[in-house]
Amino acid sequence: ATGAHRLGREWALDKTQEPDGATYDGVGPVKDLDDGAAWLDRFTDAAGGRLVVAGGSYIGIEMAEAALRRGFKVTLVTRSRVMSSFDPDMSDRIVEGLRRGGVEVVENAAVTGLGTSEGRVRSVGTDSGSFACDLLVLALGIRPATGFLDGNVLERGPSGGLRPDPRGVVAPGVWAAGDCCEVRHRMLDDWAYLPLGTHANKLGRAVGENLGGGHLEFDGALGTAITRFVEDGVHLEIACTGLNTALAEETGLEVVSLVTEGTTASGYMPEAEPIAIKVLAEKGTRRLLGVQVVGGRGAGKRIDAVAACLWGEMTVDDLAWMDLSYAPPFATAWEVVSLAARRLAERL
Amino acid sequence: ATGAHRLGREWALDKTQEPDGATYDGVGPVKDLDDGAAWLDRFTDAAGGRLVVAGGSYIGIEMAEAALRRGFKVTLVTRSRVMSSFDPDMSDRIVEGLRRGGVEVVENAAVTGLGTSEGRVRSVGTDSGSFACDLLVLALGIRPATGFLDGNVLERGPSGGLRPDPRGVVAPGVWAAGDCCEVRHRMLDDWAYLPLGTHANKLGRAVGENLGGGHLEFDGALGTAITRFVEDGVHLEIACTGLNTALAEETGLEVVSLVTEGTTASGYMPEAEPIAIKVLAEKGTRRLLGVQVVGGRGAGKRIDAVAACLWGEMTVDDLAWMDLSYAPPFATAWEVVSLAARRLAERL
Repeated sequence: ATGAHRLGREWALDKTQEPDGATYDGVGPVKDLDDGAAWLDRFTDAAGGRLVVAGGSYIGIEMAEAALRRGFKVTLVTRSRVMSSFDPDMSDRIVEGLRRGGVEVVENAAVTGLGTSEGRVRSVGTDSGSFACDLLVLALGIRPATGFLDGNVLERGPSGGLRPDPRGVVAPGVWAAGDCCEVRHRMLDDWAYLPLGTHANKLGRAVGENLGGGHLEFDGALGTAITRFVEDGVHLEIACTGLNTALAEETGLEVVSLVTEGTTASGYMPEAEPIAIKVLAEKGTRRLLGVQVVGGRGAGKRIDAVAACLWGEMTVDDLAWMDLSYAPPFATAWEVVSLAARRLAERL
Repeated sequence: ATGAHRLGREWALDKTQEPDGATYDGVGPVKDLDDGAAWLDRFTDAAGGRLVVAGGSYIGIEMAEAALRRGFKVTLVTRSRVMSSFDPDMSDRIVEGLRRGGVEVVENAAVTGLGTSEGRVRSVGTDSGSFACDLLVLALGIRPATGFLDGNVLERGPSGGLRPDPRGVVAPGVWAAGDCCEVRHRMLDDWAYLPLGTHANKLGRAVGENLGGGHLEFDGALGTAITRFVEDGVHLEIACTGLNTALAEETGLEVVSLVTEGTTASGYMPEAEPIAIKVLAEKGTRRLLGVQVVGGRGAGKRIDAVAACLWGEMTVDDLAWMDLSYAPPFATAWEVVSLAARRLAERL
């Protein structure tokens, strides 16, 4: 029998909530070690087949890469843009890299249902068409598992995440850290849901220290993130920190931005890889608001120097004239991140 | 005829000043494009022979690498330590890497003379013994070529370098930029001779803009530098920023420091390379003073995040808790530079 099943976002986010109670072979999320083991088994069973990834963010891209490496024909569908936390002109560069690596990318395609046969997924329906598949990865996002607190007095944000103070306290005698929490976003000066291992690790350490009678405070986050896509001659590093244009404008900031293309090493070195850097600054104050990077090997970790600038509330001029490291295998004489800041500074 | 010739540092620094007026085949400095071309010819003529590098800093290490790659047996002699701008516990790690790559390293060996025969260098004498060689690289340092200003009223520092203001002005109507200049060292709040392309490039740009009626200022340097040594399975990246222990103590600062060993990526990733990071901070204020890095691929450019912290006069706690980027191929969950800062912070 062939079935067509409507999917809700709820279903995708929690693997225990298939709407009709059924489980289909070949489909699942990527949330824990059991999921990982299940995916390794599925990769073996369906080797050489078609795999669709639903979701265009970090986990989606990483699963696309993993499947390509195992010989699958991979389609990535996403309801908005790939890496929608990046500005469109930067996420377009990511899409271009994915396509060069062999991924079929379909944007603006929200998953609406499954086609199944004999208990197995056969296709995935979207509002932009249907895609045949042997396997379907659900990488549609993450939400705090705080439902057990419903009706409780503990304050939670719109994400459902708890809001611990810098020491990790959510209420007298109650401590929290990790993906169940929102964190203070230093650039927004507001709460944000940023479920990353770095913040979990830092707040967890603070909680442990404080429970033991010490005093440590978690100073908040900047929205720094990094990933990569490496396949078939393509090496794409993707990183960001701070605010993107949409977020900055939502908070009422007047944003000026510029994309600069350069190289990760002096042009005559074999290490030189292309890199595109988008720098965002506030008009008037010249304060750096955020940076997005898409480029080859060595591009991604450059975001850390920018993160340090944001942490210190520095301006685009600081980043432009800063004494960053140069030798031909590592950078151009005017380090490309500083060059990008300088070019924006000249337009502010 | 075999000759033995005493060498002075002057001789080595300026290829036009051989003390006896003679020129010997197989020996020369590395200062300009003509020198580079001469070295390529010498590499071909003496292929497979013995090469001695006199000088253990950036140029010396880079020439040792270039000669190893061309099949030479390489000895590096230096009058003090290899990379003496690093603390001894860090320069020892550099020596260990050079030796693993096949370089014979002799420290505390100042060059005292040449052994020559038939117009050609045959050995180099040092106060720690004599070393047979077919080629001798002189990489003994760099000095401003400002002798033509002797007797002039223009102020120069003890290095001989000019001291332009942030716009590049050394006297009314007189501008200067490049290796003929000292620069303001932000960590010393004093002049320093740091003849690097980055500073030359920045001050040169300021001078050009200002001569054209604009207003740009060069904001000084931090002492950031980077190099690498790659040979025979060894990939060593070397970088520093700010003050080393000796410099910091000379300026009267009370320094606390710690070396932390970690990895450049999560331990289970094939990208993980060892990295050692020495962090220096001021007791009391907890202000970051400097960082030195020695490690594998991906280690060196981490110095830029630290440089940004120094630029912004941040503390060791800022670096420890900063939101730096993490994904398994790029870092450990607590980025190793931050980890090193945190471990020092716990001891301050």
